[in-house]
Formats: sequence, structure tokens, C-alpha cells
Amino acid sequence: MTGQRFDLVLFGGTGDLAARKLLPALYTRHRFGDIDAASQIIASARQNLSDKQFRALMREKVVPHVAKSDYDDTAWQKFEAQVSYVGTDANNAKSFASLRARLIDEPERARVFFLATAPALFTHICGHLAAAGCVTPATRVVLEKPLGRDLESSCAINNAVGAIFAEDRIYRIDHYLGKESVQNLLALRFGNAMFEPLWSRAWVRDVQITIAETVGAEGRGEFYDTTGALRDMIQSHLLQLLCIVAMEPPASIDPDAVRDAKLQVLRALKRFTATEVATRTVRGQYKAGAVDGQPVPGYLEEPGIKPGSRTETFVAIKAELGNWRWAGVPFYLRTGKRMQERRAEIVINFHNVPHAILDVSGSARTNNRLIIRLQPEDGLSLDIQAKMPGEGMRVQSVSLDLQFEDELKARRLDAYERLLMDVIRGRLTLFMRRDELEAAWSWVEPIMHAWAAADDPPKTYTAGTWGPAASSALIGRDNLAWLEEA
Amino acid sequence: MTGQRFDLVLFGGTGDLAARKLLPALYTRHRFGDIDAASQIIASARQNLSDKQFRALMREKVVPHVAKSDYDDTAWQKFEAQVSYVGTDANNAKSFASLRARLIDEPERARVFFLATAPALFTHICGHLAAAGCVTPATRVVLEKPLGRDLESSCAINNAVGAIFAEDRIYRIDHYLGKESVQNLLALRFGNAMFEPLWSRAWVRDVQITIAETVGAEGRGEFYDTTGALRDMIQSHLLQLLCIVAMEPPASIDPDAVRDAKLQVLRALKRFTATEVATRTVRGQYKAGAVDGQPVPGYLEEPGIKPGSRTETFVAIKAELGNWRWAGVPFYLRTGKRMQERRAEIVINFHNVPHAILDVSGSARTNNRLIIRLQPEDGLSLDIQAKMPGEGMRVQSVSLDLQFEDELKARRLDAYERLLMDVIRGRLTLFMRRDELEAAWSWVEPIMHAWAAADDPPKTYTAGTWGPAASSALIGRDNLAWLEEA
Repeated sequence: MTGQRFDLVLFGGTGDLAARKLLPALYTRHRFGDIDAASQIIASARQNLSDKQFRALMREKVVPHVAKSDYDDTAWQKFEAQVSYVGTDANNAKSFASLRARLIDEPERARVFFLATAPALFTHICGHLAAAGCVTPATRVVLEKPLGRDLESSCAINNAVGAIFAEDRIYRIDHYLGKESVQNLLALRFGNAMFEPLWSRAWVRDVQITIAETVGAEGRGEFYDTTGALRDMIQSHLLQLLCIVAMEPPASIDPDAVRDAKLQVLRALKRFTATEVATRTVRGQYKAGAVDGQPVPGYLEEPGIKPGSRTETFVAIKAELGNWRWAGVPFYLRTGKRMQERRAEIVINFHNVPHAILDVSGSARTNNRLIIRLQPEDGLSLDIQAKMPGEGMRVQSVSLDLQFEDELKARRLDAYERLLMDVIRGRLTLFMRRDELEAAWSWVEPIMHAWAAADDPPKTYTAGTWGPAASSALIGRDNLAWLEEA
Repeated sequence: MTGQRFDLVLFGGTGDLAARKLLPALYTRHRFGDIDAASQIIASARQNLSDKQFRALMREKVVPHVAKSDYDDTAWQKFEAQVSYVGTDANNAKSFASLRARLIDEPERARVFFLATAPALFTHICGHLAAAGCVTPATRVVLEKPLGRDLESSCAINNAVGAIFAEDRIYRIDHYLGKESVQNLLALRFGNAMFEPLWSRAWVRDVQITIAETVGAEGRGEFYDTTGALRDMIQSHLLQLLCIVAMEPPASIDPDAVRDAKLQVLRALKRFTATEVATRTVRGQYKAGAVDGQPVPGYLEEPGIKPGSRTETFVAIKAELGNWRWAGVPFYLRTGKRMQERRAEIVINFHNVPHAILDVSGSARTNNRLIIRLQPEDGLSLDIQAKMPGEGMRVQSVSLDLQFEDELKARRLDAYERLLMDVIRGRLTLFMRRDELEAAWSWVEPIMHAWAAADDPPKTYTAGTWGPAASSALIGRDNLAWLEEA
């Protein structure tokens, strides 16, 4: 596999994502022998920098983001020798000619353009690339979110990129799909017969998907204030996780088999009326509080936030799927900034036993549950009831745990390492197809509209908590509770 | 609960079971405060011993079998003060009068006769007890196996004991039912909803129940040579374990609800024709070999074994249940002496995924399985497929483990501690009912008869192995393998 040569052009090459994630991921894969010595990584941005200047910049901005245990100076030197820089200006067609000159025409060489720029530039960049003769039928393009801010703008981006690149050359990244634990959920569901009979309304009581961050909007206030948690997190990551949980078993893991199955989930999501938005969603905004014992300002005090902004930093939603497998099973989605813990997880709560014959007085909880943890550490827990030692038949809950890190010795890949190598090798399975993206926007839009039309501001919550009380009430009305409250 | 006073009379009080298991169990429960200070433990046997002599005998024969961590001299002194001795001779009615004199008549005091003697004495003892006025309607009797050597002799014992004691006062011990892990199997099945949809022919491929011993017939050769593994182990322990695995969920854990459900399993066991005995059973006899690196003699060289004996020391059986839940699912039973390891376990092998879409080339095994370990240590493993870290979607098998000892902090009871306290408290659930015992004999008898009628001797196997090759072949014909060969 090492033999796959490529030219990878990184637009936004001096940006934050390139420095924090993309270049460290490429270095790491290089170090572990996955990148052919004849491959080129070409960073590009508006500045005029020599290769040497860019490499110096990398040492300053990129190296600190490489895991210490993976860094090796000799390895870095070999890596940076394969990295060059070309200045391109999206408003200047000519600058793309010199980029064209750098690209190597070889039949087996993959050509990838990674657009780690503001989406406003996607159309221009794609147009210039085509005009400069950079795009062959096999050329791939990678798009980073946000891919629009509603259905219309998302369609506009897809139309523009789609005018130059065929759909099966477009890699839309949702980096949650690159996480080992999310792929493990796929492996769990489709590598094990035993979960299938459990995986439906007959045995699943509710599903909870949480992505909680402790960071606030700091550092990207202006962007965040025009976006909010619904667009930033729910429309992308949380719906993708929901798809992986709820999808039907695909016939293969080929890209379209998997994406067809995910699309069916998105299309089965019940659309909310305005009234339902009021009863099934909660939006919140944090006020000053403390995270990990450190005082933090409220959202409205953060730099870049418009005074009186109603942008939500927290969302909780009770979603439902209109299909045979899942009818009536609540899917609770929840995400927020400045939460009590950094934690991402999927909880599958199974029903209680239909008829209890054992003494459960020693048990805090009586239903089975499967917890797939994505953050801060990957892991899997299956909670079961076991007999307490001693007389009688009292049961208590115990966890069967799998810490992926301990259990599976091989080195684990960062999400971007995985996804970049998938792009280079032409594996589309973990990337979103246009119709998925648009189905996700279609479901989210009625919520956006209802919130925009509503008189009331978001519910406030104290930074460092699990969000507004309305979030507990949303799930509490069903006589259920979020994991940490259960 | 401590308040339950009792008089417990231990026939066979100077015997092996009393010294190794029963008296240590009673001491331990005494030490942990479960035995009321006004309770009496009265050992009885043919010898004439004073209380003092018997207590001295206990210090010599019983104390070495108490777990070191549980032994405490002060506690022992308190315990032995509650133990007395009465000589009784089953052939001498008068000797029972002095026993009667020791029994205390109190309405709330439980009276228990534990018959840890040869079954040939059961009838006499029960008759004498009744004649001496020792038996009230509430008096309980505990019977140790072997309860007969075929259906007829078992019925004779049950008739004789049943003439004196009502069925719900008769506690037939199968000490495997006293094991924590067997009770945990009950808790697992009926305390967790998630196993129910898996627990049938739809998802279970095969069940394997193994009780392997490393000891030989040494020390009890004469008894063993007239008994064999089929009577000694299959008819009792293995069929009881099979019942716990295969039973329908009972309406409660009341004795008759559970025992009705177990009985239905025994009655659903398909009876073998003589031809089926030849194809579905394997009997073996060990020859000289080595266990744990130590040379050991063959069965025929052991003391007390008749020359040319055809008694089986190993049995493997492919059983099947004729009911809707289990039709077509093989239940492989296996037990033997002088095996490679001391190991008792139940393995539930689930089917493979119906359609494989993941790369299983990294996986030694692809089906899920649940292993309930009874010996040498209690534990539970659920084997699942998880994704191997790195690129692609290769899966490998990993185990979710529960070591009961680590996980559940409370002190665990030895099987006899559990069962003795159940007798004292009048809990019949873990004891066999007469109809169960007789159903078990009915199923075993055609096998006994076919073997007796057969020309061929048992297959030999080398001591320290997993039995004769025919055992592997029995399961191999179904394209399956025993756990350690899989």
C-alpha cells in the first residue's frame, strides 16, 4: 500500500487546521512508512513564502502539535523535504499556473486538493484549478465543514464543487467518522451477530448521544456567533453518529452501500413542526461560571460575540425515526460548550426485563446498557446485572469494559491520519455524500426557523454544568435521565 | 436472619464430606455471624465418641480444610462449643433414642437431618428417626448423591425417604447448584433483558458444558468402579447445568417455579435409541500418562478397580432438546477424570454474522461466545469482534471479562455454605425435586443400557489429555470444536 504516490495540495496551508491536525497527521503517517518517498505535499495559501520559509514555519507551528512520542528529528527532516509551498490567490487566476507546474502527471499518482479554507473560497478555488488544467477525472477534492449554513448555501457549495468534480471524487470530512471508536461501533454492529437481535425498538429503550466540550467560543467568537451549536455540531457530528447507530446493515462496506444506509436514517428522521420544536428541543447559552475550578466568562462576555446574541451554545433534542426498526425509540442528542466535562459518548439503554423475578434492591440501575465512549478516551462498556455474592439472589450492576487502548495493542490513528490516508487510497466510506449532507440540513432547518421566529432567548446555563435545567426536563418527561443523572 | 435457630444432625459426621466440606462450611457461616448461638450441630456416626473426643477429632480432621484466612482460634472455640456428637447405629433402633433426647422442641426451631452417608443407609436412618419421634411435619432431610444408580434404585430411595418426609421437606443436594457462578448464570439470564432475544436456536449455534477433573479414581476406586462418569457426573451435575442454561424464564424464583422449568428441560431432552447412543456418545477410560508433568497410572492400575473394568472415566455426549427454543441446537456435554486441566465451564457459542462485510483476516474466531467459568475460578467472558486499530476495517476478537472475585467485593460463599444456609432457612430453589431426578435417570438409562450391551470397551485416552480422539470427532462431525481446540 505504501506504493500509492500522490500530490496533495493543502489550501489553507498556513491555517489553524493545517497546523494543528493535517500536517501533524501527514508527518505521523510519513514516519510510520505510509507515505511514498516520491509523494509531494504542497501547502498553499495567499502569502508568498519560499519552501524554506514554509518549512521554518512548520517547525514553529506544526511540530508542537506532533505527539512527543512520535516526534523524531531525522524523521521530520525526511518529511519536510517532501513538503513544499506555492502561493495562490483565489482572486488571481495566474497564481494557479505555478501550482499546476508543481503537479506531476503520472497515471498511478493520486492528486488531491484539500480545501481547508473558508467555504466562501471553495467556488473560486475549484474554478481556478479547473482553468489551470489541474483537474483530471481522477483528481480528488476534500472539503472541510462548515459546508454551508443552511440547505440553500450547502446546495450552492455542492453545485459549484460538483461542476468541476464528480461526486465520487468529493471527500466531505466529518472528522468524527475518523475516530476509532466510531468505526468500532460499525465493527461492533456488523462484526457481531449478537447485537443485531437487540438492536431495535423491541429491546432498545432509548439512545443518548452526547458531545460535551469544556471550551467556550473563545478564539473563534465571530465565526461561532454566526453559527451556533445546531449548525456546528448537531447537523454534522451528532447526526452522523446517529446514522451509525441506527442504520440498517449494509450489504458491504463499500462507500455507497454504507452511505445509502445512512441516508435512509436521515430521511427517516421525523421532521418537527414549530410546536414540536418548542417541546422537543432545548437551546441554551452559557453564562459565567467555573470549569474545572477555574472561573470562566459567560458567552456574551467573550470577544467577538454580538451584544445580546441569541446564538445557542447548547442544544438538546429528542429525535425520533419513522421506520420499523426504531419507531417510538427516543434518540436524545445533546451538545454544548462549557460543559462540566469534556465527554463524547453514545449510550444505548436497553429495556428492563419484562418481568422481574430477582431481588434488585442492591442495584442502582436495572436495565442493560451499552456505552461507546469517544472522548476523552475510547472505550466500550456493557453494563449487566450480576448476582451479588452471598445468600439469596440479589443482583447488582457491573460493567464489562473494553479499553481499546489497553486491549488492542496496535498504534491507534488520529481521526485525520485515518481520513487523509483514506483520501489518498480512494476510500470514500467514511466521507459524507452530498445527499446525506442535504438530508441533514433539511431536518435541521425547521428547528433553525422555529428558533429564529421564537420570541424567547436561549435558556441560560452556568458554565461548568450539564446545560440548562430544561435539558434534564426534556428527558425527564419520558421518565428517563441523561447518563450522568441516572 | 441470624435469628433462625436450628438443630442440624449430621449423619456421616466422621466421614469425608463432613470433614472436608460440611463442618468447614458451618464453621465459616458461624464465624460470619449467620448461626444463632442457641443452634446445635449434632454430628453422628457409628463410633462411640464423647463430645470432647469429637471436638478433638474436628481439630485434627476439619480445621485443615478451613480456609486459612477464615480461621481464628477464638471463633473456632465458640463454634465447637455448639457442636456435639451422638453415636447412632443404623442397625440399632435404640441408639436413636439418645439422639432424640438431644433435639430441642421449639416451634420456631428448624430441625434438619443431613444424610452424608451411603445411600444404602437412607431407608434405615429415616425409619429409625421416625420411630424415635424425631420427625415433625416441619423437619427437613438433606440427601447427598448418589441418589441411586438407575431409575429403579433412585425411585426406591425416594419412596423410602418420601414415606417419612414430605417432598417439600426433602433437600437433594447437587453442589454445583450452590456455586456462585451457576447462580450467576441464573442472574444473568433473568436479571438482564439483553440475553433473552439471543437465547434460542435463532442465535445460539451450540452449547458446550465441560467438567474436567485432573484427579483420577484414586482413594475411592471401589465406589467409582461401580459408578462411572455417566452416573457420577452427567446424570447429576452436567444435566443440572444444562437445565439452568436451557430453561424457560420462570414466573418467580420460588422453588417449584424454577424446578418446573428445569423439569421441562429434562423432559424435552431427546431420548437416544441404541443406534444414536453409538453415534452421539463417547465413553473413555484413561490409561497411564502425565498430569501437570507428573506421571500417573492408568485407571486399570488404580487400587480397587476390577481387572479389565469397562467403567468409563470420560463421557462426551451430543444432546438435543425437542422444543421450540432449542430444536437443532447441539448441547455437547463432556466430563472426565485425569484431564489436561481442572476446568468446569459452560460455553454458549452464538452464530456467525449472517452476512460478513468486514475483514476478519485478523481474527482467529468470528462468532460471539459467552463463557461462564465455574472452575478453577469463577468468571464470565463475552467474546466480541472489535476493530483493529489502524486503517481499513479489520476486526479481531477481544474478551469482555468479569472476574467475579475482583468485581464484586463481598465475600463469596462456598457451595456448601450457601446450600446449608438455604436448608436452614427453608429455601428449596437450589435443590432437586424428585421428578427432576427421575427424569434425569430416565434420559441416562438408555445410554447405560446400550453401553452395557455393546461389545466394545471404552475408548482409551492418555491421562493428562482432553479425552479420546472420538470426543473431538463427535463435535468435529458438526464442523465445530471444543473450546480449547477452537
